[in-house]
Amino acid sequence: EITPLAFVQRVDEPIHPIPLTLRLNKQKVRLGKKLFHDPQLSGDNTISCASCHNLNRGGVDGLPVSVGIGRKKGTMNAPTVFNSAFNFKQFWDGRAESLEEQIDSPIHSDHEMGASGWKEIINKLQQSPDYMKDFKALYEDGITSKNIKDAIAVFERSLITPNARFDKFLQGDKKALNQEEKMGYQRFKAYGCVACHQGVNVGGNMFQGLGVFGNYFEDRGKISPADWGRYNVTKKERDRYVFKVPSLRNIVLTSPYFHDGSVETLAEAIRIMGQYQLGRKLSDEDVDLILRFLIALTGEYEEE
Amino acid sequence: EITPLAFVQRVDEPIHPIPLTLRLNKQKVRLGKKLFHDPQLSGDNTISCASCHNLNRGGVDGLPVSVGIGRKKGTMNAPTVFNSAFNFKQFWDGRAESLEEQIDSPIHSDHEMGASGWKEIINKLQQSPDYMKDFKALYEDGITSKNIKDAIAVFERSLITPNARFDKFLQGDKKALNQEEKMGYQRFKAYGCVACHQGVNVGGNMFQGLGVFGNYFEDRGKISPADWGRYNVTKKERDRYVFKVPSLRNIVLTSPYFHDGSVETLAEAIRIMGQYQLGRKLSDEDVDLILRFLIALTGEYEEE
Ligand code: HEC
Ligand code: HEC
Ligand code: HEC
Ligand code: HEC
Ligand SMILES: [Ca+2]
Ligand SMILES: [Ca+2]
Ligand SMILES: [Ca+2]
Ligand SMILES: [Mg+2]
Repeated sequence: EITPLAFVQRVDEPIHPIPLTLRLNKQKVRLGKKLFHDPQLSGDNTISCASCHNLNRGGVDGLPVSVGIGRKKGTMNAPTVFNSAFNFKQFWDGRAESLEEQIDSPIHSDHEMGASGWKEIINKLQQSPDYMKDFKALYEDGITSKNIKDAIAVFERSLITPNARFDKFLQGDKKALNQEEKMGYQRFKAYGCVACHQGVNVGGNMFQGLGVFGNYFEDRGKISPADWGRYNVTKKERDRYVFKVPSLRNIVLTSPYFHDGSVETLAEAIRIMGQYQLGRKLSDEDVDLILRFLIALTGEYEEE
Repeated sequence: EITPLAFVQRVDEPIHPIPLTLRLNKQKVRLGKKLFHDPQLSGDNTISCASCHNLNRGGVDGLPVSVGIGRKKGTMNAPTVFNSAFNFKQFWDGRAESLEEQIDSPIHSDHEMGASGWKEIINKLQQSPDYMKDFKALYEDGITSKNIKDAIAVFERSLITPNARFDKFLQGDKKALNQEEKMGYQRFKAYGCVACHQGVNVGGNMFQGLGVFGNYFEDRGKISPADWGRYNVTKKERDRYVFKVPSLRNIVLTSPYFHDGSVETLAEAIRIMGQYQLGRKLSDEDVDLILRFLIALTGEYEEE
């Protein structure tokens, strides 16, 4: 029996569970998965999306900044592709409105996949009878850049991680968290982390400046255009150093942290957030409690 | 097909739908319903809960302040019993933590039901073989004040009104609202009404002062202890004129408005909220749009 008040307390939490399933076109998911892992999408057939977004390690590459075609170093830390479909916009600076739109960027970037153009990729894929058949079955006009992007985006929408212990807790299983994890969630709300990291993705639904209290960038040193954040999109001074608040789901799997990949441990990332986003020095105990709560945000990916 | 982003946008709305059903003990609901309508619970067998909370008219009496036993006038407007189970506390001043706890107050109040004590009520109910049988079937210790309160409270938990057109809209039926109603919701959020009236009950989950901008009470005149609100509970000066934010569900059915029942039309109540809670003079057009949105909060009560 669940009382109305228990119901209210649950749905009015600032964080919401990931749904167990989403109805998606399974054939597109399968095709998108093949494309996501296919190095033919890169200029020299060496790099696939999965090179930087390894699904067996949290959807990231584990590097401070990504390394792409010809071992060229990028300028930013690769975010996970898991649950990215729940983010209101894509990229640290939010420059892509959709997953479809996002794809053009790595494909052409000369330090990521370095393909000279879609024509080149389409030519390669057309050599494969399997691809020809798969595309024809799903799209009237066969292999096109639009259809490639559609299939990859649908696959990415399948990359959701429900069943985190915290979600089970939200859904009423009070034993899904232990006492420390519950206290960690309480701290996360009480300190105000939740003002920015909230909703289904515990983030991913707003922009915020990095360094609300103190100057993160001066303290770190070596400021580059990659640090300008949303300013690069809008060219408005007030958007300088502003980033999409990242999702904290599966966060323990996606070290190193921040857009610059400068921080290795999650405890340190939490401490930095306390300092620069809230103007608070968190005690070791509180950092530890919040850490335990964040670990309980690790979900399960059910492959097709 | 619902995309992850559409899912997020829906569950992250500041207002949440009322669930279609709650699992409740049906026998208790039936017994509680009988008790709720039974004037034997009052000192002179003339007044039942339903006298002031008429389920056929929105769960209220339609009067500025209630009239109880011996035609004695109360000091406050009777709130609806519909969806009161979703409120975080009961009464305008939040002095009861639960529905069970709430019941003692009207039972004994000399301007409501004026029973001298539970003993008297229990004696009356024990004359009825039906009540004797009903209670024995549900409670080992038969007719007691605790069990009477339990049955009434369970019945009250059944008084929920799902299926408001706005809830259907929240659940993805974009055609459930017309253009004006959608604009009204947009205004409701943009002006900031939603900062106080939010969650499942569009209210009922926090305390707020009446008169954030301007002095409502000085402007109205004749201040009485009934206006002191939460101060009466805590005796703290900062709680004077502070009230539980009322639910706006079915609000078009529960005129007159405010704790003092001083305002007859909903349009006027909206205007007053704009003035005293937000410091804004709302245009006639905006009042009308918000009014249309509020009307779409009218739900359906499905009697057992
Ligand atoms: C060489 C490494 C690399 C490759 C290859 C790569 N990415 Fe990325 N990905 C990144 C980096 C770095 C970012 C962040 C860039 C930024 O925000 O400006 C990113 C961002 C993203 C995001 C945005 C996530 C978010 O929450 O903002 C998505 C989605 C994504 N990549 C999917 C893909 C897909 C699909 C492919 C293949 C078509 C791909 N990536 C190929 C490194 C890579
Ligand atoms: C005012 C908004 C705001 C508040 C408050 C806030 N954060 Fe953040 N958080 C951000 C932004 C923006 C970023 C991305 C910064 C960057 O990498 O450029 C971020 C990044 C993070 C990261 C790294 C994520 C990743 O994938 O690299 C963690 C972990 C984190 N926050 C946890 C917390 C915790 C714990 C708190 C409270 C102690 C908190 N945040 C409070 C806005 C906020
Ligand atoms: C004579 C009129 C009258 C009678 C009879 C009466 N009530 Fe009420 N009821 C009121 C008034 C007036 C209030 C508001 C009083 C206050 O907030 O201090 C109220 C408040 C409530 C509330 C709180 C709702 C909320 O949202 O805060 C509930 C629940 C309720 N009554 C249920 C009952 C039940 C159950 C009975 C019978 C046992 C009952 N009432 C009998 C007039 C009445
Ligand atoms: C700062 C908090 C706050 C804001 C903002 C606010 N309200 Fe209210 N609202 C209250 C409180 C508290 C009451 C109860 C006042 C009383 O009756 O004593 C109330 C009462 C009401 C009532 C009467 C309910 C009833 O049952 O009598 C309506 C209608 C209403 N509000 C609508 C609105 C609208 C529309 C807006 C925006 C234009 C708004 N409110 C903004 C706190 C707020
Ligand atoms: Ca909520
Ligand atoms: Ca990372
Ligand atoms: Ca009323
Ligand atoms: Mg929500």
